[in-house]
Amino acid sequence: MTKEQEFLAYLKEIALLNEAVGLSEWDSQTGMPELGANYRAEMSSYLSGMAFDKSTNETMAGFMTYFENHPEELSDFGKQVYEKAKEEYDLNNKIPVDRFQEYMKLTSNAHSIWVKAREAKDYQLFKETLESIIKMNKEFIPLWKKNEATNYDVLLNQYEPGMTTEILDKVFDQVKEGIMSIRKEIAEKGQEPRTDFIHAAIPTSVQKKFVTTVIKKLGYDFSKGRLDDTVHPFMLNLNRHDARITTRWVENDFTVATFGTIHEAGHGMYEQNVDVKYDYTPLAGGTSMGIHESQSLFNEIIVGGSQAFWNKQFPLLKSLTGDTFEGIDNQTFYNGLKETKSSLIRIEADSLTYPLHIIIRYEIEKMIFNQEIELEDLPTIWNDKYEEYLGIRPENDLEGILQDVHWAGGSFGYFPSYALGYMYAAQLHHAMNQEINVEEILGSDDYSPIREWLTKNIHQYGSSRKPNQLIMDATGEALNPVYLLDYMKKLYFNVYGINE
Amino acid sequence: MTKEQEFLAYLKEIALLNEAVGLSEWDSQTGMPELGANYRAEMSSYLSGMAFDKSTNETMAGFMTYFENHPEELSDFGKQVYEKAKEEYDLNNKIPVDRFQEYMKLTSNAHSIWVKAREAKDYQLFKETLESIIKMNKEFIPLWKKNEATNYDVLLNQYEPGMTTEILDKVFDQVKEGIMSIRKEIAEKGQEPRTDFIHAAIPTSVQKKFVTTVIKKLGYDFSKGRLDDTVHPFMLNLNRHDARITTRWVENDFTVATFGTIHEAGHGMYEQNVDVKYDYTPLAGGTSMGIHESQSLFNEIIVGGSQAFWNKQFPLLKSLTGDTFEGIDNQTFYNGLKETKSSLIRIEADSLTYPLHIIIRYEIEKMIFNQEIELEDLPTIWNDKYEEYLGIRPENDLEGILQDVHWAGGSFGYFPSYALGYMYAAQLHHAMNQEINVEEILGSDDYSPIREWLTKNIHQYGSSRKPNQLIMDATGEALNPVYLLDYMKKLYFNVYGINE
Repeated sequence: MTKEQEFLAYLKEIALLNEAVGLSEWDSQTGMPELGANYRAEMSSYLSGMAFDKSTNETMAGFMTYFENHPEELSDFGKQVYEKAKEEYDLNNKIPVDRFQEYMKLTSNAHSIWVKAREAKDYQLFKETLESIIKMNKEFIPLWKKNEATNYDVLLNQYEPGMTTEILDKVFDQVKEGIMSIRKEIAEKGQEPRTDFIHAAIPTSVQKKFVTTVIKKLGYDFSKGRLDDTVHPFMLNLNRHDARITTRWVENDFTVATFGTIHEAGHGMYEQNVDVKYDYTPLAGGTSMGIHESQSLFNEIIVGGSQAFWNKQFPLLKSLTGDTFEGIDNQTFYNGLKETKSSLIRIEADSLTYPLHIIIRYEIEKMIFNQEIELEDLPTIWNDKYEEYLGIRPENDLEGILQDVHWAGGSFGYFPSYALGYMYAAQLHHAMNQEINVEEILGSDDYSPIREWLTKNIHQYGSSRKPNQLIMDATGEALNPVYLLDYMKKLYFNVYGINE
Repeated sequence: MTKEQEFLAYLKEIALLNEAVGLSEWDSQTGMPELGANYRAEMSSYLSGMAFDKSTNETMAGFMTYFENHPEELSDFGKQVYEKAKEEYDLNNKIPVDRFQEYMKLTSNAHSIWVKAREAKDYQLFKETLESIIKMNKEFIPLWKKNEATNYDVLLNQYEPGMTTEILDKVFDQVKEGIMSIRKEIAEKGQEPRTDFIHAAIPTSVQKKFVTTVIKKLGYDFSKGRLDDTVHPFMLNLNRHDARITTRWVENDFTVATFGTIHEAGHGMYEQNVDVKYDYTPLAGGTSMGIHESQSLFNEIIVGGSQAFWNKQFPLLKSLTGDTFEGIDNQTFYNGLKETKSSLIRIEADSLTYPLHIIIRYEIEKMIFNQEIELEDLPTIWNDKYEEYLGIRPENDLEGILQDVHWAGGSFGYFPSYALGYMYAAQLHHAMNQEINVEEILGSDDYSPIREWLTKNIHQYGSSRKPNQLIMDATGEALNPVYLLDYMKKLYFNVYGINE
């Protein structure tokens, strides 16, 4: 074996351990017996600890030093892998193994505590756990820090390499202002769409049949995935042949599972189409949370926001639901789907107000890590911001600060990815339209050119390219929020009957 | 850390790895995406290889030698754990690694060859593979052998410690004769029960509701388990708080899932009630295949064979199934459930004829390992025995010698466990009846005293006691087939209206 082969074999062991951790995580969220949680935490923390140990131990250090001194022994491919592994090594190596294991155990238990706090709608039940998670993150930040400007930049970078609070502050101001202005126009001149049919009762089994058909058509491959039920939808990939998605079914609102599933399928399609050559290396899997969200949101917002797409899919839904939609024509249906109004729950927000939900979280996370705030005050801060940006106020913590799973998992700096995903998706859509006629394809029976364009420009590369490079290569320019604002304006002015 | 604590921590690592392998196995049988199989094989073999390595490597050898020379450093508990670990170490370590790997490869390939032979209904396609597996077992037996009387005793002992051909020859002769005589009486004087309603169509969702209610009442704890769908039902325990069961649903025969689920729940209840102190040691989990089967069969044959039980549960089934069972009274229903007749397929056999299927396999396995027979002759030997004991003859190898998966996996000496389970279950039932009135409890609304008796006498001990000791302590005597024969006679004479 050459030294490079040895290195790749070693990385494969880490990948296999992470796959086992992933399966454990999927299982713990989809159907693990309730009382199994403590045992599961032991197993997960043992396996992830082992993966972490292998990622940071003397052997790994040996590979790092060796290839630093003998770069000529690496093939081009090996060099790419080495560079990514080195990045992760530098990230991981800063934290002592026992602290990391402690952290894994903490976040593993935090999930069920969060679930209980949600049931009681009481942030107080979760506060102490959240405090511990934040405290450990604050302990780790100085260890991770390279040349980032602020503490929160350190966390941001873990999800979106190259992203800074400086960029985000500017971009988010532009987005906030743009959305506010669209919302103002709508409030003044818009005609409210009819939406009663959105709340028609449709049995879960029928909804499942519908969305399964739709996401298959979009390119989600069920021979490499599956669809399960969870409170909080997610996609989890064990490998490129096993990228699982979940959704939540609401009988009186088919749009929850419909858009939720279309969204998660976008994540799954990304993973299912990464080049096989990256298997068992740190280059397998999506390159950043923002790019990942660009794929899920391309599905949800661009495809799911297309009138041509719904002109094709609404008749299918109609055919599965008896007389549920009797008398509703295509335009009425589409307008109803794309209603926009203030709401309290992020994952139920429409595509226009959604970025505001993210901006609120971004501002709060920045406060937690760049200022010293009392965690006691978080629900009030949260509720005040909702009142300011969206004009509504949560009545309890379930509608407010307890709604998202992210913090229970220790994911701070993650939320901005969703808004980045919106902007990337719109920017990719603009670039895609230079090559293929997206609306025409969405009005046809074969959506494959869209999936193929995304595979060619995004999916296939896995993590071998950085977000900014991918976006630059695919669209010819850096992140630009204008495409999102243009897209939203056109879409919502159409729905609300506003002529410019 | 004391040396004992070190040893226990090391064993815990092995247990956690096995737990991950177990989860992977469960997932691959319940819903893994089809194309994920090859990736999954990599992960499973990596993890199980690591567990095996830890069980046999220098570190483990070090613990074995150390405690052999310093038994005084072990607590009573540590001594129990050490002895069990030593047994397993000796078993694993007797075979040279390369031969063991060869054997794993052979049995792994054998499975698909067996599947192909089944499809062709042709034993000849499997014969050569079977020959190699038997040959390797014959190579290993002298390495495993301690003081067992015959080669086949060595294999028997791996599944049921302390069991011998000497005991089984005697016991099985008695069982064979007893069952033959009951069958003769039934054939001469019995009144055939009505069975048409067994094949009424009942939707899976309704069956699921029914059996879920029933096994909960029996004591299967869903907060420590779950029920999934598979072609081949099984119970798989990750730990005592996560003992999962599966079943197969047949819409036109509710008895398949009903008795199947009740059976697997018995396995699950065993694992769910092992004493917490054995966690993460080789003493966690059931002590032998025979004792495990005694728990599943207690549920299936004793509880599921009780008229009082069905007098209570049939009304529930009726209430869930509209007019499906209109005009069927309790006695008719019960009699239909307990019909007995000759059949060719073991897993479809009724409780009276089942032990004959096992005795046939036992006799053949003994011939293979204790005599020199031509494997060429196996199908004829098999078919002749079915004709002799059950009065029917397989028309092809799929109905005959190819029906069971065990030999393809190299499991020789396993089959007798099923019959032991029958005998143990009846013997435990007899002993239980000295303390509590089982039929009265099964006619009541609270079955918990039964589960509690089994936990007190069997479950709690995990693998800390050998099968013969458990049976002796729980029933006051060694294995005695008379209880099974008495039970069967009484039950079937009742069903077939025979007065003695």
